[in-house]
Amino acid sequence: MSITKSEIRAGAYYDSVVLMQLQRSLAALDGVEDAGVVMATPANLELLADFELLTQEGKTANPDDLLIVVRAGKAEAAEAALGQVDALLTARRSSISSEFRARSMAGAAKNLPDAEWVLISVPGRYAADVADEALDLDKHVFLYSDNVSVEDEIKLKAKGVEKGRMVMGPDCGTAIINGVGLGFANRVRRGPIGLVGASGTGLQAITSQIHNLGGGVSQAIGTGGRDLKEAVGGQTMLQGLDYLTGDEGTSVIVLVSKPPAAQVSTRLLQAARKTGKPVVVDFIGFAPPAPQIGNLYFAAGMEDAARLAVELAKKAPGSAPEVAKAHDGYLRGLFSGGTLASETLLGLQNFLSPLFSNVAHRDEQKMADPLRSQAHSILDLGEDVFTVGRLHPMMDNDLRIRRMKEEAEDPEVGMILLDVVLGEGAHADPASELAPVMQTLKKARKDLDFVVLVVGTDEDPQDSGAQVEAFEKAGAKVLREVNQVVAYVSAALGSESDAAAHPVKRFVEPLAAINVGVETFYESLKAQGAEAVQVDWRPPAGGNEDLMSILEKMRS
Amino acid sequence: MSITKSEIRAGAYYDSVVLMQLQRSLAALDGVEDAGVVMATPANLELLADFELLTQEGKTANPDDLLIVVRAGKAEAAEAALGQVDALLTARRSSISSEFRARSMAGAAKNLPDAEWVLISVPGRYAADVADEALDLDKHVFLYSDNVSVEDEIKLKAKGVEKGRMVMGPDCGTAIINGVGLGFANRVRRGPIGLVGASGTGLQAITSQIHNLGGGVSQAIGTGGRDLKEAVGGQTMLQGLDYLTGDEGTSVIVLVSKPPAAQVSTRLLQAARKTGKPVVVDFIGFAPPAPQIGNLYFAAGMEDAARLAVELAKKAPGSAPEVAKAHDGYLRGLFSGGTLASETLLGLQNFLSPLFSNVAHRDEQKMADPLRSQAHSILDLGEDVFTVGRLHPMMDNDLRIRRMKEEAEDPEVGMILLDVVLGEGAHADPASELAPVMQTLKKARKDLDFVVLVVGTDEDPQDSGAQVEAFEKAGAKVLREVNQVVAYVSAALGSESDAAAHPVKRFVEPLAAINVGVETFYESLKAQGAEAVQVDWRPPAGGNEDLMSILEKMRS
Repeated sequence: MSITKSEIRAGAYYDSVVLMQLQRSLAALDGVEDAGVVMATPANLELLADFELLTQEGKTANPDDLLIVVRAGKAEAAEAALGQVDALLTARRSSISSEFRARSMAGAAKNLPDAEWVLISVPGRYAADVADEALDLDKHVFLYSDNVSVEDEIKLKAKGVEKGRMVMGPDCGTAIINGVGLGFANRVRRGPIGLVGASGTGLQAITSQIHNLGGGVSQAIGTGGRDLKEAVGGQTMLQGLDYLTGDEGTSVIVLVSKPPAAQVSTRLLQAARKTGKPVVVDFIGFAPPAPQIGNLYFAAGMEDAARLAVELAKKAPGSAPEVAKAHDGYLRGLFSGGTLASETLLGLQNFLSPLFSNVAHRDEQKMADPLRSQAHSILDLGEDVFTVGRLHPMMDNDLRIRRMKEEAEDPEVGMILLDVVLGEGAHADPASELAPVMQTLKKARKDLDFVVLVVGTDEDPQDSGAQVEAFEKAGAKVLREVNQVVAYVSAALGSESDAAAHPVKRFVEPLAAINVGVETFYESLKAQGAEAVQVDWRPPAGGNEDLMSILEKMRS
Repeated sequence: MSITKSEIRAGAYYDSVVLMQLQRSLAALDGVEDAGVVMATPANLELLADFELLTQEGKTANPDDLLIVVRAGKAEAAEAALGQVDALLTARRSSISSEFRARSMAGAAKNLPDAEWVLISVPGRYAADVADEALDLDKHVFLYSDNVSVEDEIKLKAKGVEKGRMVMGPDCGTAIINGVGLGFANRVRRGPIGLVGASGTGLQAITSQIHNLGGGVSQAIGTGGRDLKEAVGGQTMLQGLDYLTGDEGTSVIVLVSKPPAAQVSTRLLQAARKTGKPVVVDFIGFAPPAPQIGNLYFAAGMEDAARLAVELAKKAPGSAPEVAKAHDGYLRGLFSGGTLASETLLGLQNFLSPLFSNVAHRDEQKMADPLRSQAHSILDLGEDVFTVGRLHPMMDNDLRIRRMKEEAEDPEVGMILLDVVLGEGAHADPASELAPVMQTLKKARKDLDFVVLVVGTDEDPQDSGAQVEAFEKAGAKVLREVNQVVAYVSAALGSESDAAAHPVKRFVEPLAAINVGVETFYESLKAQGAEAVQVDWRPPAGGNEDLMSILEKMRS
């Protein structure tokens, strides 16, 4: 029969490494079966219970309390183990204890003035204040800590943008800056591939794979997992994109993330389009509209992203940035084919906003009334609502002709897009009816452009060559594939990038950094040959909440 | 000042081609400005209003009414035009009016006994009965009609499966069977690529593109847009998959659809995995987990699907069907990397069911409690709930070791999957702690398999070669990429295909068909050299609802 004994230390702060080492030391003591040293959160209590380490006393502990539990064969062994806690904590000596440790971040900055970076891995509730202090000192911030509020993240990132400094994180697990890994990072050769990632192990897996495929990394910039949420707006990824665009050492850019919020995604991909460098996009769980649109290459998974980046880096340097044509009007897509409409929408939703459709992929795209276009619109005129008691628009052009005229009367419309599906069953000569209307409408409004997607083969009964020619004669741009349509329309109508509003101070080599928090990150910097200073951080007021709140009130 | 006059014909039925021709004939009459001939649905009334064709009388018409409207410069011209409606309807002569027209489907079947197919394009509310009649005659059904209820679709498809006959549709726009296009279809050369599509213009665009790239099509099978919804369950696509698997003329299969319901997608992809042929998957708007998993190739868009299919068709014939290892247990994935967990889930959700996770992509995947695994589970142990006051699992193996032991105690668990992320900041030698545990657990349970995903480079401080070796010595399968993990695990644990439960009678060449509805489809069959009979269909009781309901009651 085992005996379990516990001890609660209210509001006590210790580095997580210290806690892990204490737990292991206790478990290794004579007669001890198992030990647990945790902050008493509900999840941790449940875990302790699973391993028969939860005492009655433990159940009463608060999430802010440190809970120490020992299970032993005999009560004496358990009690003896608990009696050694203080001795074990004191005995704990890190490899850096004999080295210089700054008492404050300001002190560290004075000691190592070249340090442009501050790594922060203190507990979440203290982390925002520490990051704010780093920005005040004009440092770039690598914020490993999680459990930081989104409000704090927004404030910190706004301040970073204003000061031209990166705020990577919160919950940023990894980065490679000037060849030095911050946080968790794989050792990879340097090279022309620059990455920005809202996903820690995503960045690690892709940089590793790039190395394993013979490629190399210029910079790998982490953003933290929430950066691409609507509220945060991709501030750090836009900074990273701007940085890599201007970076001579980077010829290929990789973006990796879980799928961004729709608005953020549009903003990012528009910005990526204007970099003038090939950009590999790996939004995990995102449906790519095509393998390639302009300079954007859509990857299916991390290994695919790495492979694409390495291949692209071997090719000639990127072309000049794509310059959007000055075309302010809205797009009105009038489709006869539902899938053609759907796939065109899937592509254009990455570049045009706001965009509405009766085959919406996202709730906010739903049209109030498919008979009334709004802003950019993509319509499937083969939907049931249009075809009751009426021939399909592939057979009968009447509805599309009427709608083209209606759209052309709207002065905000700059481009009308039609698909023309040839083949058996379809109208015998659609161009004979549609092209003259285009010509007439263009005569009345020279700023109005027509784009026609012709789907069919050279064996179709309509003579596809003659169809294409007729549309081109009427002044329309004729394309044969959906992805060509998406590339063409998005280049002509896509709005300006706002990455340029996110300039960041160039990183100086060699990298030097101040570490506040988990000591192994400091050790890892030194092991990589980087200059670093560890700050001997303690929570304000020793982590005592009451005292902290008094101090806070005194400061404000 | 224009004058608009209208006429309502209650419950009258005319072929849509007839209505279009009537409208055009009226609009072309002397003094007439515009004309509308429509079923008086709300959308059609709104459209008439847009073109100044909606009269006070028209506003009172019911959706089942035929509404005829004429706008003319003078009242006499408008009235004269309306006066000619009957004459114009009578004058209408289709190219087939002098040919044989069957009075009934049974009559047509007697006249053309080789006809295996019935094409149906009558109005939606009559279409299910017509399709049911075709199945009673043991015909395959191509159901172009839309506005058929999902309940009727389910009934028809169940009957089709039972009888080994296809029910393509409702709302099936296209198919190419034995080289003959049904409905809307492009003329393409015959070849080794077989397609099944829930998307009409998707099939048209891909078959066209295959032809344009020099490839050819064996069969292109349409399913109707609702086939992959949960309620219908992909019955027709499973039939098509089974047909093409057994078809000697098909060496590459293409599946095209909007993203299927999750359950249906899993069933389809499991079935596709077992075909022994390369299968190109183009689920429009679907996030592909990787470019390739086993014999599945994930396309980004229709042009990409066509390109992949043509490339694959040039290669050697497919390998033998992948045989799933007899492995009944559940998977438990215990990840330290959030993105690695997320991307593994993204891949495995296509093959394993039910599957739960604390980084769920779909609502139904959400775990009630991340501390308790359920069925197949993928866990990110780096999530906040696990890391409060505790080192990240990349640094500290304690939590994963405890969890591995817990999972191994569950006799339903057959496979435990771990990622091991090497590099700066991570544990100095994870295999030294994890591998011995695996070895011990395997000794106790020989049926338990371990899979380890090792992420890192040869320059990482941990010596990745030694790590891999240690895990292999402990009996674990070591892989280096997420897509390899997905392929390996899904092959070992994926359930049996149920496509084999959907055998379909082989299509006989040359194709012969019975057409019920839009006459242009008949004309198109003849133009392609196929034998066909047109049924001179009229709605029961002349479309009179009251009479129809009396007839219905007399029959039952």
